[in-house]
Amino acid sequence: MAKQLTSRKENYSQWYNDLVVKADLAENSAVRGSMVIKPYGYAIWERMQSVLDGMFKETGHQNAYFPLFIPKSFFSKEASHVEGFAKECAVVTHYRLKNDENGKIIVDEDAKLEEELIVRPTSETIIWDTYRKWIQSYRDLPVLVNQWANVVRWEMRTRLFLRTAEFLWQEGHTAHATKAEAIEEAEKMVGVYATFAEEYMAVPVLQGIKSPNERFAGAVETYCIEALMQDGKALQAGTSHFLGQNFAKAFDVQYVSKENKQEYVWATSWGVSTRLIGALIMSHSDDNGLVLPPKIAPIQVVIVPIFKNSEQLDAISSEVVKIIEQLKSKGITVKFDDRDTHKPGFKFAEWELKGVPVRLAIGPRDLENKTVEVARRDTLEKETLQLIGIADKIEHLLEQIQINIFQKALSYREDHTYSVDNWEEFTKRIEEGGFVRAHWDGTSETEQIIKGKTKATIRVIPVDEIKEEGKCILTGNHSKQRVVFAKAY
Amino acid sequence: MAKQLTSRKENYSQWYNDLVVKADLAENSAVRGSMVIKPYGYAIWERMQSVLDGMFKETGHQNAYFPLFIPKSFFSKEASHVEGFAKECAVVTHYRLKNDENGKIIVDEDAKLEEELIVRPTSETIIWDTYRKWIQSYRDLPVLVNQWANVVRWEMRTRLFLRTAEFLWQEGHTAHATKAEAIEEAEKMVGVYATFAEEYMAVPVLQGIKSPNERFAGAVETYCIEALMQDGKALQAGTSHFLGQNFAKAFDVQYVSKENKQEYVWATSWGVSTRLIGALIMSHSDDNGLVLPPKIAPIQVVIVPIFKNSEQLDAISSEVVKIIEQLKSKGITVKFDDRDTHKPGFKFAEWELKGVPVRLAIGPRDLENKTVEVARRDTLEKETLQLIGIADKIEHLLEQIQINIFQKALSYREDHTYSVDNWEEFTKRIEEGGFVRAHWDGTSETEQIIKGKTKATIRVIPVDEIKEEGKCILTGNHSKQRVVFAKAY
Repeated sequence: MAKQLTSRKENYSQWYNDLVVKADLAENSAVRGSMVIKPYGYAIWERMQSVLDGMFKETGHQNAYFPLFIPKSFFSKEASHVEGFAKECAVVTHYRLKNDENGKIIVDEDAKLEEELIVRPTSETIIWDTYRKWIQSYRDLPVLVNQWANVVRWEMRTRLFLRTAEFLWQEGHTAHATKAEAIEEAEKMVGVYATFAEEYMAVPVLQGIKSPNERFAGAVETYCIEALMQDGKALQAGTSHFLGQNFAKAFDVQYVSKENKQEYVWATSWGVSTRLIGALIMSHSDDNGLVLPPKIAPIQVVIVPIFKNSEQLDAISSEVVKIIEQLKSKGITVKFDDRDTHKPGFKFAEWELKGVPVRLAIGPRDLENKTVEVARRDTLEKETLQLIGIADKIEHLLEQIQINIFQKALSYREDHTYSVDNWEEFTKRIEEGGFVRAHWDGTSETEQIIKGKTKATIRVIPVDEIKEEGKCILTGNHSKQRVVFAKAY
Repeated sequence: MAKQLTSRKENYSQWYNDLVVKADLAENSAVRGSMVIKPYGYAIWERMQSVLDGMFKETGHQNAYFPLFIPKSFFSKEASHVEGFAKECAVVTHYRLKNDENGKIIVDEDAKLEEELIVRPTSETIIWDTYRKWIQSYRDLPVLVNQWANVVRWEMRTRLFLRTAEFLWQEGHTAHATKAEAIEEAEKMVGVYATFAEEYMAVPVLQGIKSPNERFAGAVETYCIEALMQDGKALQAGTSHFLGQNFAKAFDVQYVSKENKQEYVWATSWGVSTRLIGALIMSHSDDNGLVLPPKIAPIQVVIVPIFKNSEQLDAISSEVVKIIEQLKSKGITVKFDDRDTHKPGFKFAEWELKGVPVRLAIGPRDLENKTVEVARRDTLEKETLQLIGIADKIEHLLEQIQINIFQKALSYREDHTYSVDNWEEFTKRIEEGGFVRAHWDGTSETEQIIKGKTKATIRVIPVDEIKEEGKCILTGNHSKQRVVFAKAY
């Protein structure tokens, strides 16, 4: 199989598009901006869902489901939210079609909705309208709910996984009696996201807060995780918002406290989406295709038999059955690619393209010698191993691969993180790509000017590090700490 | 806690509505016809999803995701499909809102879509438009794909779970090289549904095919499972369709066969929805609340401590911790309700209302005697058991409850299934409720007349039984076999 991908060096953007399509992850659909997530891509999403869902439940959350449609008027209730969300969205205006006199299907103008419905771009409004009915007393708090759902934001320029009109996500929406508890929740959940990104996706992330410009519409504080892609651009991988009492006030959600006083409820919301698949691809993959961390890979081990005739295949298969059994007993997912329609070389390239962490190849000579050829996707190294104890060896190898992929991404980030103190170096580093730690005077105006000049935005304001004072890179005004700039997806 | 529900006898419909709301399963939302599925109701759906998803994967299917929106023109491509589906549906006409001069939010008329988008009522059209790209050769077949998704069908009269504008479901869409293989798939999947309904939901179902009148719009044959509710009405619990080459022809999906000929692809689709929760409720529940079969119950065992002070609670808790550990090691889900805000009687009634299969109560005297009070939800019987070996006893009891619930529902159905041979008895039995096995002359016209006179429809035409010829209940014309009539949800 010939090289299928444009190289990253040649055209990074084209490489990404090629890879998503050729590795059978997703494709564009007949509906502008909406993607089809193909089975292999969806299997990655299912792995992500399964791990995240477990983490949410471990931290006390339950799933629920709220309506797809939101009455238009709901968006007007929270002033900053409407600015951020109610503009570019899909609007349902009618509820019936009919045939015209020529038998053509047309919208039935008699079936016009009194109030238009918005296809949810996010669900704060409909959920807080519901919470008003759920919450009366402090005994009803906290409400710790998550929803797995599709959402729609009308986008003019779309890219598979990274920016699509419809995407899949989860959105947590919690209600609390106190401000402190809500802040603790928002911080806890961004921590869950960071753990998931680093320990499962093997993607190192910076944690911190957003500047007011980059904050979620309606939030008091937005916490985020931010990852660096191989082209030096940042990608926001998850956000968690402390919403204050904004939505409680907008939807009149009050509770009677232990002290018998009426109080507004405190809120958070937090989400990650199928965009994570984009982050996964761009963090690890290479010019041969996907590189998947074992903990997220739908198939962790693929076994390719090398045979010339069906007798050989039968002999190999009876050995492979035993290997599969041993691997499965360790919870390792394995696929035996015994297709007789394709040659081994084709299969090698295909599974390399699809990023399967470990490939075993086994032929007649291996049977004689009781060996197997083991190839790891991350380093492309091969070695021949004795079959005895093979499951333990593979299990250990998968752990090593998981660590190596993370370390490689971390080294990349460290090599592309710069502390700069003058404008010239700042613009140079931003242009080249990477995280640029620089001083900022704390004003939105300065942030906007920097964005206008360089396309860089403040990706994250670190919170857990010792703060070093200095002078703003643009204005020279006083700065309380360095913040992290980058160009972003 | 006083009786919370209207009794079934008093008003069955009101009993159902009360139960759904008071057991915290679902509620109506601010959007007409759309429900909010609350955490406890959603947990039941998650159990169903988990079991079904496993069964689909066992039978070789993979999940994928297709767009929510479908271009209007797609519905015109399959003539009978458009009649059935493209009428009562949500239509997206615009993609932007704006503020008018008074700051009010209005639809931006400049952002009108060239072609309206339909919110999917079912996905055959968009999926077959996609399959055209996926299928070229016999090597690409079969395609065995399932989607978990939300769909919208504009309904004027809605009822929680049973009929809502938006609902959650799964829809399988498969593509095959031969007619025989597609029919086999459609039959296999209705078999999967029957197994799931009977073995997990403990709901006995009739299996068979639909009459042409009741067939899915675009299907050549519709297979179904049909259950009998406690009010004598039938509920269609799942359908599987053999679609012939209808969608392949409408969307021009052809493949090159082994013999190097261009052929149209054969199709199936099959689905079950959150409606199953309605079937579950109406099959088993009683005037005290839900009765959940253990295999679907989100909580299988609840433990209620009986205590007067915190010393007693502490002593009980340290015993309960051990019980929980033993139960969990057997994979039994258990909740310890140690709230100090409610009395045991309140808790008993609450968990009864929520249908938890087994309740354990444990107080100071039980601690002394090393006993526990065990109450089963299905029969409301209580007994006091020795704590030794309690996990084995509970495991066995859960199995017994599962069987008993199924047997009870089966007995009800058998007691309410009638073979009738004259019109007078037919109308009487239909009026009283139940499955009525009667002869039918095979014409749509007769079926329509019967429906007009009695509201009964043909729920299912049995396929796996010895056929007995006879005379049509209405016309006296020749009938090849008895079919099953009932009034239906």
